[in-house]
Amino acid sequence: MTYRAPVKDLMFNMQALADLPALNKIPAFADFDLDTAQAVLEECAKLCEDVIAPLNWVGDKNPSFWKDGQVFTTPGFKEAFKQFAEGGWQGLQHPDEFGGQGLPKTIGAACGEMINSANVSFALCPLLTDGAIEALLTAGSEEQKNIFIPKLVDGSWTGTMNLTEPQAGSDLAQVRTRAEPQADGTYKIFGTKIFITYGEHDMAENIVHLVLARVVGAPEGVKGISLFLVPKFMVNADGTLGARNDAHCVSIEHKMGIKASPTAVLQFGDHGGAVGTLIGEENRGLEYMFIMMNAARFGVGVQGIAVAERSYQKAASFARDRVQSRPVDGSTAAGGGAAPILHHPDVRRMLMTMRALTEGCRAMSSVAASAYDTAHHHADAAIAKQAQTFYEFLVPLVKGYSTEMSLEVTDLGVQVHGGMGFIEETGAAQHYRDAKILTIYEGTTAIQANDLVGRKTGRDGGAFARSVAGLVEATEAQLAARDSAAARSVLKRLSAARLAYLDVVDFIAANSRSNPNAAYAGSVPYLMLAGNLVAGWQLARSLMVAEDHLAAGNDAAFMSAKIATARFYAEHILSRAGGLRDAIVEGADSVTAMSLEAF
Amino acid sequence: MTYRAPVKDLMFNMQALADLPALNKIPAFADFDLDTAQAVLEECAKLCEDVIAPLNWVGDKNPSFWKDGQVFTTPGFKEAFKQFAEGGWQGLQHPDEFGGQGLPKTIGAACGEMINSANVSFALCPLLTDGAIEALLTAGSEEQKNIFIPKLVDGSWTGTMNLTEPQAGSDLAQVRTRAEPQADGTYKIFGTKIFITYGEHDMAENIVHLVLARVVGAPEGVKGISLFLVPKFMVNADGTLGARNDAHCVSIEHKMGIKASPTAVLQFGDHGGAVGTLIGEENRGLEYMFIMMNAARFGVGVQGIAVAERSYQKAASFARDRVQSRPVDGSTAAGGGAAPILHHPDVRRMLMTMRALTEGCRAMSSVAASAYDTAHHHADAAIAKQAQTFYEFLVPLVKGYSTEMSLEVTDLGVQVHGGMGFIEETGAAQHYRDAKILTIYEGTTAIQANDLVGRKTGRDGGAFARSVAGLVEATEAQLAARDSAAARSVLKRLSAARLAYLDVVDFIAANSRSNPNAAYAGSVPYLMLAGNLVAGWQLARSLMVAEDHLAAGNDAAFMSAKIATARFYAEHILSRAGGLRDAIVEGADSVTAMSLEAF
Repeated sequence: MTYRAPVKDLMFNMQALADLPALNKIPAFADFDLDTAQAVLEECAKLCEDVIAPLNWVGDKNPSFWKDGQVFTTPGFKEAFKQFAEGGWQGLQHPDEFGGQGLPKTIGAACGEMINSANVSFALCPLLTDGAIEALLTAGSEEQKNIFIPKLVDGSWTGTMNLTEPQAGSDLAQVRTRAEPQADGTYKIFGTKIFITYGEHDMAENIVHLVLARVVGAPEGVKGISLFLVPKFMVNADGTLGARNDAHCVSIEHKMGIKASPTAVLQFGDHGGAVGTLIGEENRGLEYMFIMMNAARFGVGVQGIAVAERSYQKAASFARDRVQSRPVDGSTAAGGGAAPILHHPDVRRMLMTMRALTEGCRAMSSVAASAYDTAHHHADAAIAKQAQTFYEFLVPLVKGYSTEMSLEVTDLGVQVHGGMGFIEETGAAQHYRDAKILTIYEGTTAIQANDLVGRKTGRDGGAFARSVAGLVEATEAQLAARDSAAARSVLKRLSAARLAYLDVVDFIAANSRSNPNAAYAGSVPYLMLAGNLVAGWQLARSLMVAEDHLAAGNDAAFMSAKIATARFYAEHILSRAGGLRDAIVEGADSVTAMSLEAF
Repeated sequence: MTYRAPVKDLMFNMQALADLPALNKIPAFADFDLDTAQAVLEECAKLCEDVIAPLNWVGDKNPSFWKDGQVFTTPGFKEAFKQFAEGGWQGLQHPDEFGGQGLPKTIGAACGEMINSANVSFALCPLLTDGAIEALLTAGSEEQKNIFIPKLVDGSWTGTMNLTEPQAGSDLAQVRTRAEPQADGTYKIFGTKIFITYGEHDMAENIVHLVLARVVGAPEGVKGISLFLVPKFMVNADGTLGARNDAHCVSIEHKMGIKASPTAVLQFGDHGGAVGTLIGEENRGLEYMFIMMNAARFGVGVQGIAVAERSYQKAASFARDRVQSRPVDGSTAAGGGAAPILHHPDVRRMLMTMRALTEGCRAMSSVAASAYDTAHHHADAAIAKQAQTFYEFLVPLVKGYSTEMSLEVTDLGVQVHGGMGFIEETGAAQHYRDAKILTIYEGTTAIQANDLVGRKTGRDGGAFARSVAGLVEATEAQLAARDSAAARSVLKRLSAARLAYLDVVDFIAANSRSNPNAAYAGSVPYLMLAGNLVAGWQLARSLMVAEDHLAAGNDAAFMSAKIATARFYAEHILSRAGGLRDAIVEGADSVTAMSLEAF
């Protein structure tokens, strides 16, 4: 088996950190207790381990390819997607009324991690479809919802997000795709979109493109962008498929990773105009797109955790088997000989780093998902609002920090393999190549950091960011009441990291308007520090739960490992916080000091 | 032009840090003053920019391939290698008596950087040949030297290093290749070697394999390994080629990067035995191999700098051209519009990080090369010995730190490009893929770190490592005598990093024998801290030289950029030192705390 789903760790987080039992008391989630969650995860694990994971390396060797306007996906993908859809997995988090299962995101995100660990390229298709469903749920007309959502939920059709154009990447103000209103209330769409994930493929009957475009005469910039629904095949009123629409895939990209996932260039309107219908109101497209994007950003953060987990499993397995050199402490020197490399301290350090980063980000994402569920369904409006603010604060951290950490983890994953890691057939290199897209798409790390600096910190003068430090401090108080060496060590590092974070929040809040160059020069380091702190904080909480379980005699092996991992995180990862603080607070000027001509 | 050689920066280092004028006073280097160095660098730059660099992407698209035992290199490589050889570049650092030019390593390493920036895959062939020449110079018989070295120096033949076997990677004690003594004084070699760079190719008439093998009846472990010269074609006494030897390439690897460089599996003796001659004495093979390896390790460190430079140039160029979004400080908002992304603080931060890491490691390698030259040619034995110790201390830092930093730089190089970076045709991804081998071959980062902990620090109780801190302290005293803001800031960070380093040296020295798990758990972080410190120290020296030049009105643009880069390094890179110190000194136990079964 190439992948074993970490069901136990996911369940631990759900119980100990995300408090699924509390969510279970919310009427919308009355059906979803821990036992149900466990059953769902186990079912999902089976599909991922047995069906989807084995296709990962196949997809790298046999990428999707384009021929005469059609895209042919990797052998086996179509059949796997059919199984995925028939199992109801696309509808996991979507409403019952459209055929979904209505599960909380807290459980859905755990399943999302498994699917992405199994196969990021495969998982992108459902991920984008989820985004399209969310956008339609929020802003679609009744007709759009009724016709499109059930088909997206049951996997007959899939969805895409069409934002990027050659001149409009991070800067959506530059979007030029044109929409011409027609007498029948539809629009004709003309333009070129690039980097469209699963923009064309053979896994579903129809593809529902959500397209950003500018209605003729609309204002310049982001305030003149509207969102359109442009299906690959027109859909009749009864839901059957009609004529081919004028939206064509003219090529797909040759990428460093996620090669099985087709990244399309789509041409709209080269043969008279692609027919689209407006979603919501004109000129509010960006707002709706952000709904998709925020769901997708959280999802991409989970992809980072997923790739990291897979990379860790592969490296740990290699380290158990590969015999090379005698341990420095002579621990296997009874026979005087070489030992599995897992015995070497630096291999342990690499694996612990991989594991700690992965578990830390997983814990953070679980808490974020729980906040989302509370925000959307809690009966108390004040609690819901607070949870929403917390979730929105966490999204750039989940996206930015988890994906950046996945680069570190997959690098170490290759490194543990030594020379074998660089040979493609080993498989470790694929994770390294795949991961690199995660810090780029759905908003680069810098774009996440801008969001954190501007909307999430600068806007309220750092008040909410400081309140998060207050929550961390409460955890510190709990740690202080314990007398274990692990709790003491974690307390020391958590406290130092929190203080470093508070210095940075003050600096960012003070400068975000008066000296934006200084604030934004530190934006990504701030994101890395905040993500590091929140992940470390969640592992500190995990440590206490694990210590209590251990004392009660529950699952000693798992709980001991959790304690060791949390302590390692604090001592080796949280300890990076001070350096980031210094660079941000005392090093802002040197970022922009060199003249532009000198680069 | 895809690459522009940084001749000015290389010359600055040679003059200001490596003190070429002082080397020039050593009789062996009497011909090599700054003017000569400049002329050599300019000539080398031309070849690299015009001939070798354009083949880099070609090699990625059209890797070497194997057919029926032969390897066909990328179109254009053979012709480029001919030009390289005819220009005398292979003999740059080798003795006159064998047809070389006898240049100091200080100049040679600068050329080496350019060749590797131009094309790492191409440059590997000369790099391995240099290693073979060094080993023969040290341990070869007169006959071996006279027959083989001139042909290696003039590029008619090339060299390889045959260490690795499937069961023997980092652990050479496991080498099983067998050598059977023959009546005529030769040996018959039997065995399989893997990961042999340029083990087979079509760029030269003959290939000189240096092969580690065990003479029948030799002791177990590393003390029973001998080194053999096994040519692809037998060589007659008059130097002409004879029969094909029984050393055959049975396949080449499918790698993540450096695809143009063939990585061979070589089979020795499948048809009766490959004929080899012993180099030096039996059972001293590892010692000789370390001569090659130390040269190659320095060379691989330079490859890290080289790939980082190329990645930086590409990213800076993209950032100048790509227009996207309005700057946060409104600096180009006269027209209210979008600006080149170089205007965005985070893009500046990424580029400054790339530049500072590259220039810092380049400065370190220049000083190391100078120490090598002093060690090998200075008339005063005490000075030479001191220089040798310094050089040997620096080799693991040049290899380990420069290559690890190249991963960070090439990652940022992709990131600056956004989505375009992930598309192979853009070219940024190739550097990311190529760089990953550098932390692995010629000894992984952990192997370098073991060398640093064991031989370079533990053996003398940390005395030499502490003396390096003393040199840093002297630079601090010079900084303290200045009143510029840049000098003050660099002083603060350099001093803090030195103190962190000293804590770590004390910890490593105290534990390397009594508690090896603790010492080796911190080995790679110690290497990263030491490399960071030495690179930052050299940039601090550079800063002072640049300030003086600036005050004298010399080359204001270059000197201002150097000052800005040195300050950035101190504030953003040296500031990582404290976190590493904490992890090493206070976090050793948590590296090995988790039970082996829990991984």
